[in-house]
Amino acid sequence: MALLETSKYSPGSVLGSVNPDLGSERQTASFCVERLTALLDGGTEQTRIRRAVVEAIESDPVFSRENQYFQTQNERYEAAVRKAVHLQKKMHEMGWTENGPEYKYIYRALSGDVAFLLHRVFMRSISVLGSDKQIAKWIPLATEHKIIGSYAQTELGHGTYLQGLETTAVFDTATQEFILNTPKISAMKWWPGDSVTAGDIGPKMNFEHIDNGYLLLKNVRIPRENMLSKFCEVRPDGTYVRQGSQQINYFTMTTVRISLISDEVLTPLMKACTIAIRYSVVRRQSKLKPGEQEAKILDYQTQQEKLLPQLAAAYAFYFINDYLQELFNRGYTEIQRKNFDMLPELHALSSGFKAVITQHCTAGVEICLRACGGHGYSLLSGLPSLYTKILASCIYEGENTILLLQTARFLIKCFMAASAGQPVPPSVTYLAAVKHGKCPAKNKLDFLNPDIYTEAYQHVAVRLTSHTAAKLQDLIQSGVKKHDAWNQCTVQLVQAAKAHCHYIAVKNFAETVEKLETKAGIQKIMKHLCDLFALHGIFSNTGAFLHDGYTSAAQMDMVTASYLDLLAVIRKDAVPLVDAFDFTDKSLNSALGSYDGQVYQRLYEWAQRSPTNQMSPAYEKYLKPLLHNTLSKL
Amino acid sequence: MALLETSKYSPGSVLGSVNPDLGSERQTASFCVERLTALLDGGTEQTRIRRAVVEAIESDPVFSRENQYFQTQNERYEAAVRKAVHLQKKMHEMGWTENGPEYKYIYRALSGDVAFLLHRVFMRSISVLGSDKQIAKWIPLATEHKIIGSYAQTELGHGTYLQGLETTAVFDTATQEFILNTPKISAMKWWPGDSVTAGDIGPKMNFEHIDNGYLLLKNVRIPRENMLSKFCEVRPDGTYVRQGSQQINYFTMTTVRISLISDEVLTPLMKACTIAIRYSVVRRQSKLKPGEQEAKILDYQTQQEKLLPQLAAAYAFYFINDYLQELFNRGYTEIQRKNFDMLPELHALSSGFKAVITQHCTAGVEICLRACGGHGYSLLSGLPSLYTKILASCIYEGENTILLLQTARFLIKCFMAASAGQPVPPSVTYLAAVKHGKCPAKNKLDFLNPDIYTEAYQHVAVRLTSHTAAKLQDLIQSGVKKHDAWNQCTVQLVQAAKAHCHYIAVKNFAETVEKLETKAGIQKIMKHLCDLFALHGIFSNTGAFLHDGYTSAAQMDMVTASYLDLLAVIRKDAVPLVDAFDFTDKSLNSALGSYDGQVYQRLYEWAQRSPTNQMSPAYEKYLKPLLHNTLSKL
Repeated sequence: MALLETSKYSPGSVLGSVNPDLGSERQTASFCVERLTALLDGGTEQTRIRRAVVEAIESDPVFSRENQYFQTQNERYEAAVRKAVHLQKKMHEMGWTENGPEYKYIYRALSGDVAFLLHRVFMRSISVLGSDKQIAKWIPLATEHKIIGSYAQTELGHGTYLQGLETTAVFDTATQEFILNTPKISAMKWWPGDSVTAGDIGPKMNFEHIDNGYLLLKNVRIPRENMLSKFCEVRPDGTYVRQGSQQINYFTMTTVRISLISDEVLTPLMKACTIAIRYSVVRRQSKLKPGEQEAKILDYQTQQEKLLPQLAAAYAFYFINDYLQELFNRGYTEIQRKNFDMLPELHALSSGFKAVITQHCTAGVEICLRACGGHGYSLLSGLPSLYTKILASCIYEGENTILLLQTARFLIKCFMAASAGQPVPPSVTYLAAVKHGKCPAKNKLDFLNPDIYTEAYQHVAVRLTSHTAAKLQDLIQSGVKKHDAWNQCTVQLVQAAKAHCHYIAVKNFAETVEKLETKAGIQKIMKHLCDLFALHGIFSNTGAFLHDGYTSAAQMDMVTASYLDLLAVIRKDAVPLVDAFDFTDKSLNSALGSYDGQVYQRLYEWAQRSPTNQMSPAYEKYLKPLLHNTLSKL
Repeated sequence: MALLETSKYSPGSVLGSVNPDLGSERQTASFCVERLTALLDGGTEQTRIRRAVVEAIESDPVFSRENQYFQTQNERYEAAVRKAVHLQKKMHEMGWTENGPEYKYIYRALSGDVAFLLHRVFMRSISVLGSDKQIAKWIPLATEHKIIGSYAQTELGHGTYLQGLETTAVFDTATQEFILNTPKISAMKWWPGDSVTAGDIGPKMNFEHIDNGYLLLKNVRIPRENMLSKFCEVRPDGTYVRQGSQQINYFTMTTVRISLISDEVLTPLMKACTIAIRYSVVRRQSKLKPGEQEAKILDYQTQQEKLLPQLAAAYAFYFINDYLQELFNRGYTEIQRKNFDMLPELHALSSGFKAVITQHCTAGVEICLRACGGHGYSLLSGLPSLYTKILASCIYEGENTILLLQTARFLIKCFMAASAGQPVPPSVTYLAAVKHGKCPAKNKLDFLNPDIYTEAYQHVAVRLTSHTAAKLQDLIQSGVKKHDAWNQCTVQLVQAAKAHCHYIAVKNFAETVEKLETKAGIQKIMKHLCDLFALHGIFSNTGAFLHDGYTSAAQMDMVTASYLDLLAVIRKDAVPLVDAFDFTDKSLNSALGSYDGQVYQRLYEWAQRSPTNQMSPAYEKYLKPLLHNTLSKL
């Protein structure tokens, strides 16, 4: 009964010792965890800076998330405001600046739990779209929070389709002002956060730390000079004038989609994998072998099949994020040289990958949650809040289906151009080379050859694009109007766009692994993950690969065999692979996922913080009077 | 600006008129909605009784859920306790009894938002497992809430694997008492609701109306007579004695899985479909045709492809639920005649369908939520709470993967028996007839023939079962130990179990449609839904059907064409098909899904109830003092 002594499990107790079921997993790592962490960070110096930021933030009690799961919406919002203000002070104190190397780690260290994120969008908009005079006037005020901005674009009735926005701005030459109005309910601004003008739109699935608001405008007058005027202007006589290049503005919109992938999408999946995998080696359930100890649930093939593909996807998308960042940096350089050729490709890639990664990672977090059974359903596991937050990423910054259709439009255009012998951007040159061969694999080991599976993915992407292009042509030639024909192909266009992104992700993972040749131990395990990512994709979409006979049924059985073999191989390194993500216990904020694996004690300890327990016994307070009262009247 | 007059949108205003975009959808219904409602209810008399219950509950302010989305956990729990107690009074008042025809509608009318559900499990346990003397002693006390019971089975460290439970009960012959103890942390009882003994386990994703608790036992003494003793007993000398048949007890456990399908799983999906489909004909976004009005989002093929298969699944599972209920009634009759032959089949079906339906419906609710974009993410849509609640059904009453493996074990056993020429239960006789033919479809219309698609499903189920059985045999013959071999086949066994259930669901839907011959209009639309359910399943799992060449690539293209055609056909009746579910606005509790479709006005009106708005402007209360305070110190 020693384990039940209250002193040991009272709130705030130190649970030092590592659960031996978790500890043993670390002793057999096939690679150096610290080296992999440095690889992910981009170098040991980056790891050092990141850890210093995390240390400074986590040791400051103002930034604590300790009671987050027990707080009401208002408490969450108040804390987030307090943190945002305190952060200004902290940055000043630590000498961190918005352009310094620490900046990109701050948001991760705070787990995004901070207010005024839209104030930053407001500031960025001024910087990018404002004239020099406007920047000089407003940015200093905004930096010191002397003015607080928001970004009110979405309306009740309109989101993605910007041409449909209904808010009106009429210029009054007499007073040199714009008069803003909300002509009807559906034109009301909806979702802008930090808005203090009108009201809150009510509770959401998550984002309690942001007061998403609505905004009603009734003859609001704005001076002419307040219109951001780097690229366009309204003259005193009311004439609208464009000036300079709008391309850079368009490019900025595109980069937002890429920038959210890391913080808002990858981090939650990496955290969810860490929590679920650590828990799965601590939780024992049923016996694999009669007479033996109950087995760790990660030893069950079905549990491996749930979690390990998510782990592989987290790495795959981590590397594709690097690829996209690099591509966008190159794009930015070209644009500064007034070369806008890369823009359509960048737009297609950012749209497609935003959709594919948010969708895949959201599903992955849900799988991790469910794989932890009842404890995963408890907020104390940390998984429900990861899920309800990441889910929003499928909706904001462009709804996923619409984004995939934009990628598809680009693919169809490029396919047509390629077929006509015209040049196309690098990422889609493969569309020109429609091959009618067969997959050359002869045994299951051939499917561990990246050339074999990358080519299979390429084949599927080409087939889906070309088939849909043909269907579209046929419909139009048979007299169906262009827009109707497009609509009738959209389900298949979405499939083509996904296949294109999947192919690029697999190819990029394989290329990343190849470049790791000097890091033998790490290269080997990354190769396994790359294989798993690729084969899981085939195993989960067998029809796409079997359809035209490129892959035979016998080959598909080889894929399945290799895929299932890989699960058992990667399972051995599962814990070191999540340890390498290097999340602190405070950033995971999970009773299931802590580094020491003391799951049951922590659940018990945390549950005692529940406000419901403060009113215990509930019977006395709520039940007895009610029961007494009601039953006596029966 | 008339729409913005405050009086019209103040809380509680009556929004009478139906949005014309929704109204027009009802005028073109191809069938009589009221007749379909009666069909679903099982007759017009049942519809009348259900509506009377709903009316009585919804007109009583104690049962109101009006402010639910704005309440804290404690407020939710308190309301649920008040409702539970009030319900006793209401039942007395209305003359409703637990055995009356109204009883099954009460829970639906309350949307499950009531406390003491485990008190009912406690009472059912006494009734089923207790001796006549025990029943006579406790049931009257429990009925009047003079004792409140819980059901504490799950422990921190153990759920599904009951043999692993660690709580100890030692019989003390001296005092004729059992001494209960919790020997270690992982043995602590976890999740039991209504428990007032120890504490609350903390916040969850949903179920705020239930105080799931933990329970620590330290030398708790229970008199010998309190052990439920219908089937087993401990004699005064400590001897354990079994008596009577345990089969009926086993049967009771199985029926619980079936009984939850209707209330906890189907109703949420039906509500989600109602909300998302009504919203999708009111929301307009972008133009399908240049120069025209913006299109209803349900006119986009991609939106139809998200929502209509969920609608078809709701009907498919509604009918499979009827099938299972009927099968269990027959099983019960047989068992009372001491014939236990049906038990293994019933166990396999209840396990498999519990898993398949909860999984499918949970995914369906999530799809509905995401299909409503940002407004779906608002709690005011009603969709987030449907999702977070239905998600739990994948975990409780048997974790889905484990249940599917139990179904698979039955399938393998029956397949072996059938191969050896032995008789097998009716639902699996098809396993005996392994055919090696090809799908005979010649054009896309052939895939609207239920014989064609039902046979394709049957073929896939047989193939997956027989292949996995062969793999299992091969592994064992090659020297792999039985339990290891089983573990290495589990991913594929799960696939086989799902295919078996999917086949039965399709077959049952087709048979149900056939029986509707006297109801022509309804039969026609149900036939469309049945086709859609079947073809969507093929379209989403093409690999399973293509694998061994049973379906050719050309035939798969026909499936795709027929499937996409069906979307456009069913889209016309989408609103009448959800209207037939007959949910009241109060039971939907959704700003997006109300019968009148006044979405934007309702969102605006409801948002104003947000407690966050009571503190508006937040700037004054939180921000100004903080900013002033902090900035002055910088």
